[in-house]
Amino acid sequence: MTGVKHMKWWGWGVDGIAFHHEDKPRLAPFVLDKVGLDITTPGRRSLQLEDLTIPPSRLSDQLRATLTKIVGQANVVDDDLDRVVHTKGKSVRDLIRVRRGELGRVPDVIVYPGSHEEVQEIVDACVDADAVLIPFGGGSNIAGSLEVPLEENRQIVSVDLGRLNKVLSIDDEAGLATIQAGALGPDLEEQLGRRGWTLGHFPDSFSHSTLGGWIATRSSGMQSDKYGDIAEITRGLKMAMPGETLELRPLPSTSTGPSVREMVLGSEGRLGVITEATVQVHRLPEVREIQAYFFPSFAAGLKAMHDITRSEANVTVSRVSDERETAFSFATQKKSGGVSKLVTAGLMRVLKARGWDLDQICLSFVGFEGSKGHVARQKGIVKEIISEHGGMNVGTGPGQLYDQKKFDTPYIRDFLLDRGAAADVSETAAPWSKLKPLYDNVIEAAENALAEVDRSGYIMCHLSHSYHAGACLYFTFAIADDSPEVLERYDVVKRAIQQTFIDSGGTLSHHHGVGVEHSPWMEQDLSPAGMKIIGELFAGVDPKQNLNPGKVVHTGRPGVSVLSKQPED
Amino acid sequence: MTGVKHMKWWGWGVDGIAFHHEDKPRLAPFVLDKVGLDITTPGRRSLQLEDLTIPPSRLSDQLRATLTKIVGQANVVDDDLDRVVHTKGKSVRDLIRVRRGELGRVPDVIVYPGSHEEVQEIVDACVDADAVLIPFGGGSNIAGSLEVPLEENRQIVSVDLGRLNKVLSIDDEAGLATIQAGALGPDLEEQLGRRGWTLGHFPDSFSHSTLGGWIATRSSGMQSDKYGDIAEITRGLKMAMPGETLELRPLPSTSTGPSVREMVLGSEGRLGVITEATVQVHRLPEVREIQAYFFPSFAAGLKAMHDITRSEANVTVSRVSDERETAFSFATQKKSGGVSKLVTAGLMRVLKARGWDLDQICLSFVGFEGSKGHVARQKGIVKEIISEHGGMNVGTGPGQLYDQKKFDTPYIRDFLLDRGAAADVSETAAPWSKLKPLYDNVIEAAENALAEVDRSGYIMCHLSHSYHAGACLYFTFAIADDSPEVLERYDVVKRAIQQTFIDSGGTLSHHHGVGVEHSPWMEQDLSPAGMKIIGELFAGVDPKQNLNPGKVVHTGRPGVSVLSKQPED
Repeated sequence: MTGVKHMKWWGWGVDGIAFHHEDKPRLAPFVLDKVGLDITTPGRRSLQLEDLTIPPSRLSDQLRATLTKIVGQANVVDDDLDRVVHTKGKSVRDLIRVRRGELGRVPDVIVYPGSHEEVQEIVDACVDADAVLIPFGGGSNIAGSLEVPLEENRQIVSVDLGRLNKVLSIDDEAGLATIQAGALGPDLEEQLGRRGWTLGHFPDSFSHSTLGGWIATRSSGMQSDKYGDIAEITRGLKMAMPGETLELRPLPSTSTGPSVREMVLGSEGRLGVITEATVQVHRLPEVREIQAYFFPSFAAGLKAMHDITRSEANVTVSRVSDERETAFSFATQKKSGGVSKLVTAGLMRVLKARGWDLDQICLSFVGFEGSKGHVARQKGIVKEIISEHGGMNVGTGPGQLYDQKKFDTPYIRDFLLDRGAAADVSETAAPWSKLKPLYDNVIEAAENALAEVDRSGYIMCHLSHSYHAGACLYFTFAIADDSPEVLERYDVVKRAIQQTFIDSGGTLSHHHGVGVEHSPWMEQDLSPAGMKIIGELFAGVDPKQNLNPGKVVHTGRPGVSVLSKQPED
Repeated sequence: MTGVKHMKWWGWGVDGIAFHHEDKPRLAPFVLDKVGLDITTPGRRSLQLEDLTIPPSRLSDQLRATLTKIVGQANVVDDDLDRVVHTKGKSVRDLIRVRRGELGRVPDVIVYPGSHEEVQEIVDACVDADAVLIPFGGGSNIAGSLEVPLEENRQIVSVDLGRLNKVLSIDDEAGLATIQAGALGPDLEEQLGRRGWTLGHFPDSFSHSTLGGWIATRSSGMQSDKYGDIAEITRGLKMAMPGETLELRPLPSTSTGPSVREMVLGSEGRLGVITEATVQVHRLPEVREIQAYFFPSFAAGLKAMHDITRSEANVTVSRVSDERETAFSFATQKKSGGVSKLVTAGLMRVLKARGWDLDQICLSFVGFEGSKGHVARQKGIVKEIISEHGGMNVGTGPGQLYDQKKFDTPYIRDFLLDRGAAADVSETAAPWSKLKPLYDNVIEAAENALAEVDRSGYIMCHLSHSYHAGACLYFTFAIADDSPEVLERYDVVKRAIQQTFIDSGGTLSHHHGVGVEHSPWMEQDLSPAGMKIIGELFAGVDPKQNLNPGKVVHTGRPGVSVLSKQPED
């Protein structure tokens, strides 16, 4: 009716797309070997929508009338499917709970505004009615930023930005596009592409996340080494706040005091609802190429990425997987094509003869964009660095495959949940000097945590973004657990990883935001004074806590997620 | 006693350095022609320190005892010279008032802490005593950020960070240095240079401004196109806030909610006293070169800078002066060397033959750094762009001179004040599409304002920093006025320029900060909602307004500077 499409209520992505193991002959043996899990069993069915117990909407007639007046009846929705879809994001915690039918508190109504003005009226109506407002973009968040507080007794209004999906204007001279916040990645790239532009922002969630969501959570994309994180990309903003609209005009740079732009970035709905942004766009490059490399060790790969970053090359992607993720990549290849072409007995013999430990091979991708000459020069610089660190170019085949398949990764979590394993991701950023020790500490902490809960599991990592001063390490981890206690055990591992990030000089998250999932570590990351600053900011703008309360600032015990049972003292 | 050196109490820089016209034969005729001012007259003497009426210190015995206990007697100073030095920054408004002996409210005491811990104790003591605390770095601010509010009845404590001037540590692996906030530009570059590093941050005020001041006001340097503005350079921070210390660990990037780092940047002392920062440092480049170019018009020069920015070159400096500033540059050259070598009858004949209007020549500098090959390639790309826009390379001579003399520019204001003219600067940033119209509007507005106050004057401009989406335009303007009303007339011009920035899509300041000088335009720049956000932030952290009150947030009538008489309605 509203025309807005959503992901599956019970999992990632759209119907008809799912992860399969049958076309990946190495995967089942790999998982059996590493985790002791047989993934060849048919998946369990999750509940049907009809099986769910959905608490009745608490929306008052008065607020319904007000909202209906603002957006029209067709755009005020409280049917079961919509309410379930809007009740959570897509973290593995969210997926597990929804699949179990543990919905918790569910939004009482979903409104679909069609303009900034309507959003402003909705914000004001919610504050007037002392209702809770939770903005909703693509619903892809994995940090609990969409969580409805269990203890919340007020009415919950989910504001879905899905109808605000247009590129409003492009300043061709300045390379700036004004885009509505609800535009999904593919939608806005399609609209920009028609006029020869690209935003160049490609997070894993690209297909199902929105511009507004990226800004509200400080997203990064796969080509952010070149195009910048969303914080740099976003030059102007419009946000509906209680009683007034924030309008930040597009500026290349400014020295107007504490940066309001940088306060809206990462605000996760706590200051208002972002309705549009003016962002930097770029002309499509003549050449775009991703080269793959092998390194004899992760340490060598990390050093090479650092040297590339401080070289005179200017790459678009700098990525290297540890040996664990490389082995997983090898195991998920289809019968032909991609990396599997490389993992031939012949190549392996060559590497062995060179003295490589084949279990330590690390796969790397480096991206290049620009004119032919520019790309050739960058590749020349990179080639030399790779070889200084004992690496080896293995062509563009794997990179092409990576490029095509990069947005399908999140589907694997549903596949694993169907077969008794919970998998998710945690990422951090740290100075180059702290990166390898942090990595070693995280692997050890995760393995200790798995031993503590007496479950098998797996953890793997890649470096995903490079900066002058450091890089992002992106960990994926899984725990084999089919029991009702899976979330509690998962939390033991997740907590160990997050705490190790902090203890090793990293941040709690590089680009997934805070939500309620990471808020327990905020005080350790930013110091108590940093949390005081953020707390005062939120309290000043939103004194009654109507705007997505409970996110970013942790309200429970330090170091303990509010989302699962507390561990024994 | 404290060992901390300051600038002249009545002007810019140190004793023994001053601007002279005698060695610049073209200057006096130029000024006479353009402004009708005879600068060959001997300069007026300003007041002597002994002539000033300095209000007695209002420091209570109790607060003095507390401060003495914290920093020791030698570091609690209230002699006349120190109090006058700390009473203002170095805007032309500050210079005029100090030279007249119009000191206004003067700090009651200056304390020179020797450690972060001492700063923290000072902050707490000031809040406890309900005193006003104004942090002081190099004292170079020209936005009124050091202004002591006239109506302030509480005790005023100026906290001079001058003793905190050490590079504390360098992380050679990550390229990060932890430096105390009171380190002046030359001091920290010397300490870094000894270990082969540079910060690469070179604002005009470099010799007399500090790291903490740069951060507190969102400074940019001449090579920020390559090294980034101070906001990007600053990765970690330590700040003494009321009752607690903010510690932001150095991180390459993070998604921990609204950026506290970006709230401290530009906070101008209103959230606390910055005591140290961890900043990105770089290895000294093999080659460093500044090439000079002539363009037939400012419009052509602007387009060329834009094309360089969006090219595959990666320059360190992109600067082009309008024809007014170019003429001024020609006029300030010494008898031999620099641009004067170029401004020969021979070259001018060549340009004339090419059809150039010699009054429209625009001088441009483009900087290159890196390996020989890298610099050669960048120069090749730039060369092509320059020639596409009708420009002409005129070698490295002028650039070398510019490079040596760039930090001497502020001295000229004292020279002019001595001879009956008030000069200062206003800078903005705007999208590329708005740059030329903004420029035209500002020139027109300034000339109209000069006509309105019936005084001759001059305004000139250069583009100083380039970004993907736009650039900084940096205006210098002067008004010939020897009367007691010079400030009121100066304000008419300054207001016209600032309002035109806003009306033409620019920001009120690109890198000079807000203070009290620019605060009247904050609401127009950031919208009222943006000011609400900043106001709530300040009020939350500093409810009694002990921390540098009155800065950033304007408290008077909109559009009117609080610093001079209000215009008639």
